[in-house]
Amino acid sequence: MSKENKKLVEAITAQEVDFAQWYTDICLKAELVDYSSVKGCLILRPYGYAIWENIQRLLDAEFKKTGHENVAMPMFIPENLLKKEGDLVEGFAPECAWVTMGGGEKLEERLAVRPTSETLFCDHFAHVLHSWRDLPMKYNQWCSVVRWEKTTRPFLRSREFWWQEGHTIHETAEEAMDETLQQLNCYADFCEKQLMIPVVKGRKTDKEKFAGAEATFTIEAMMKDGKALQSGTSHYFGDIFSRAYDVTYAGRDNVLQYPFQTSWGVSTRLVGAIIMTHGDDSGLILPPAIAPYQVVVVPIAAHKPGVSEKAAEVAQRVANFARVKLDNSDNSPGWKFSQWEMKGVPVRLELGPKDIENNQCVLVRRDTREKVFVSLDELETAIPALLEQVAQGLYESALKNREARTWTANTWEEVKELAAANNGYIRTMWCGELACEEKMKEEVGLSSRCMPFGEEPFADVCPCCGKPAKKVVFWGKAY
Amino acid sequence: MSKENKKLVEAITAQEVDFAQWYTDICLKAELVDYSSVKGCLILRPYGYAIWENIQRLLDAEFKKTGHENVAMPMFIPENLLKKEGDLVEGFAPECAWVTMGGGEKLEERLAVRPTSETLFCDHFAHVLHSWRDLPMKYNQWCSVVRWEKTTRPFLRSREFWWQEGHTIHETAEEAMDETLQQLNCYADFCEKQLMIPVVKGRKTDKEKFAGAEATFTIEAMMKDGKALQSGTSHYFGDIFSRAYDVTYAGRDNVLQYPFQTSWGVSTRLVGAIIMTHGDDSGLILPPAIAPYQVVVVPIAAHKPGVSEKAAEVAQRVANFARVKLDNSDNSPGWKFSQWEMKGVPVRLELGPKDIENNQCVLVRRDTREKVFVSLDELETAIPALLEQVAQGLYESALKNREARTWTANTWEEVKELAAANNGYIRTMWCGELACEEKMKEEVGLSSRCMPFGEEPFADVCPCCGKPAKKVVFWGKAY
Repeated sequence: MSKENKKLVEAITAQEVDFAQWYTDICLKAELVDYSSVKGCLILRPYGYAIWENIQRLLDAEFKKTGHENVAMPMFIPENLLKKEGDLVEGFAPECAWVTMGGGEKLEERLAVRPTSETLFCDHFAHVLHSWRDLPMKYNQWCSVVRWEKTTRPFLRSREFWWQEGHTIHETAEEAMDETLQQLNCYADFCEKQLMIPVVKGRKTDKEKFAGAEATFTIEAMMKDGKALQSGTSHYFGDIFSRAYDVTYAGRDNVLQYPFQTSWGVSTRLVGAIIMTHGDDSGLILPPAIAPYQVVVVPIAAHKPGVSEKAAEVAQRVANFARVKLDNSDNSPGWKFSQWEMKGVPVRLELGPKDIENNQCVLVRRDTREKVFVSLDELETAIPALLEQVAQGLYESALKNREARTWTANTWEEVKELAAANNGYIRTMWCGELACEEKMKEEVGLSSRCMPFGEEPFADVCPCCGKPAKKVVFWGKAY
Repeated sequence: MSKENKKLVEAITAQEVDFAQWYTDICLKAELVDYSSVKGCLILRPYGYAIWENIQRLLDAEFKKTGHENVAMPMFIPENLLKKEGDLVEGFAPECAWVTMGGGEKLEERLAVRPTSETLFCDHFAHVLHSWRDLPMKYNQWCSVVRWEKTTRPFLRSREFWWQEGHTIHETAEEAMDETLQQLNCYADFCEKQLMIPVVKGRKTDKEKFAGAEATFTIEAMMKDGKALQSGTSHYFGDIFSRAYDVTYAGRDNVLQYPFQTSWGVSTRLVGAIIMTHGDDSGLILPPAIAPYQVVVVPIAAHKPGVSEKAAEVAQRVANFARVKLDNSDNSPGWKFSQWEMKGVPVRLELGPKDIENNQCVLVRRDTREKVFVSLDELETAIPALLEQVAQGLYESALKNREARTWTANTWEEVKELAAANNGYIRTMWCGELACEEKMKEEVGLSSRCMPFGEEPFADVCPCCGKPAKKVVFWGKAY
């Protein structure tokens, strides 16, 4: 390793030394974000934003396939509108930013910068919904929202963050619940098949559910350090909001009805999940589906005759089937390797004079660093296959990490020992009482991540209180 | 025309009766927007947002072709940051919305909701720019901004609106000026070739330029009523902002330099321009490039055997080369015709039992209402050709309107007479003095739209003051 590379690599804190610092180093040095002069607010730089754009493009297409339409709502919510649903205002008002002046004058009513837009959507639904024929209405918007957090971290928690929020209304409770779960599955599939992040699907406890929801469902991902990251949520509201905001329609029987409602969202948190699920001490490792560049072409001995030209020709061919970057800067190949490893490009293509002679190139996987020589005649099949291998490799590593860090506890002693010794999921039975959930938090520092789908009870009692228990819960430390 | 159609059509005010009311009617009845509970803020409904999404998709691709990268900046600007450039703060502070409370506490420094983001970009550039090797930086963001307008109208002027803002920095003044004009041309081409709106390109007078810019360039479109709509602007800043925000880099000679800067933007105003350039008394007419549906398929006598199935089959074929909507609702064909005319779908495809017998369908242009019978074997060529004809037809009509409403005035008498008799462009020579520009505004109600590119002086004196004049100016009433 040349001296300059070493310097670049040394600039990242090792995961084992300080995982939190490693994370921050990646965010800044891979040029994903910059801090702004607005406390707690981030700048998404081109490389970070390009990842988010790819996420948006893929998810948006999925939403449209299932009949969702995009809209744009105002960024402001009048205080009185926000206050109509009691739980929601209690949940969100304490962390709102308030506009109190406009056009040089004090406003008669202050406006919250939206922390989430259920209230605005309800207000709109009340205007435009008339008959059962208008249902379902399945809307989504891509925007940013504001929550006045005290401590912030890039992508994971910031005062402003970017997300999508879906809001739908339906004629029946069953349809609304189907939608809620359909969207949860959409998120889970996206995480598992595009971001290569295995997730646990389940329902949140009442303590952890969304303010005002009847039920909240979640996908939980596990980071390399064993901490959980709530990566997407889907809420079923029943007719709670419809009643609070007086959203009605003439039903099939011509009687006024309240529709049943859902909302669901994922955010730029997903970028944090990608970093902490796949990254290593050399930097980011990006799943091919959302990598701004899937392949980087690095010419070796580029000053030698024909090398630059051949590298450009190869890059142009690769552009037909993959997002490609030709690095023809005057940095050394070693420096380029380090830089593009830091930025997590899944496959590197090296091409030097000898390779050209032999009509071949070198392909290097970012995740395993395996090198293979490939004939230049086979790029069209070899590169897509290798990208697929990287994707599968990332998923398998992440799954292995999660499996190695998932424990079952049957007694309070086991819970305490496991929680003290490890970060990861602790799987227990639970009686359903808030008191036991609070005990888990206060005494061993674990929050309930979810009541996972498809898990059968494996014991009869709650380890916290010894009372009968029917629910399985995954507990963990969480971001 | 059936009774129900007539009712629908009557619901729109005729352009001749009240153009402003016609415009509002279209915005609401074509379901482009809804008013919100936030005074002066709009909701973009699915059909309106879909138009904006198409605009975004096409423009974003153009920006990327010329090497621009998307980023996301915070929506807030600390007051002190906003204040660093004197002209900018004078221009924008009076119409800012201010956040003064966050997380239940009064903020130490109030935050403006961004009215435009030059200040934030400069602040970021100052962080990330080090060397001439980092230049140019060519960034763009898609977002909404807030200006506390007193009177608002859908798309044309609202307190929050959606736009893109490009911000670039360059090593030399010449490169920055090239960028400024390149982006102006990008906007002009987009308007003329995709939105089918002819525009006049030119430079704004100092009175009308952007607060803080050295030069502002504009594209001006003319609406059906003869009023002008400023449809996009591109600004050259020189190093004014770089100096105010201390953005520097080590130049090729290793001496600290200030980069030269540009910004440029178009907004959801473009949707207003589309409505008022092309619409008629039956509703919207959408240029095919941005129409959410380019073709609507309406089955005739759909209850007759085979009609629904054939209509679905045809719609599926059309989906391979155009955005298509099959209207298989149980409304009457007449009602559907009116509804989709209102919504401006460029081409209607009618298909009834007789058509099926003859292996044909009827294609109807939205703009001219011409009907043609087309063999079902020729859809793949006939429909794209017809869409192209609609597009060209729209452009030609708009150009004709503009040409018919452009007059030249050589004397103050002529200016007064023309301004009293017509809405449109009045073309004069101008001495360059602010006093004459103000006289035009106060005495005849005209603002300078621009000093158009490529116009040769056609007289020697300014009609306002009689002094020597070298510049040609287009004047008009404007939205």
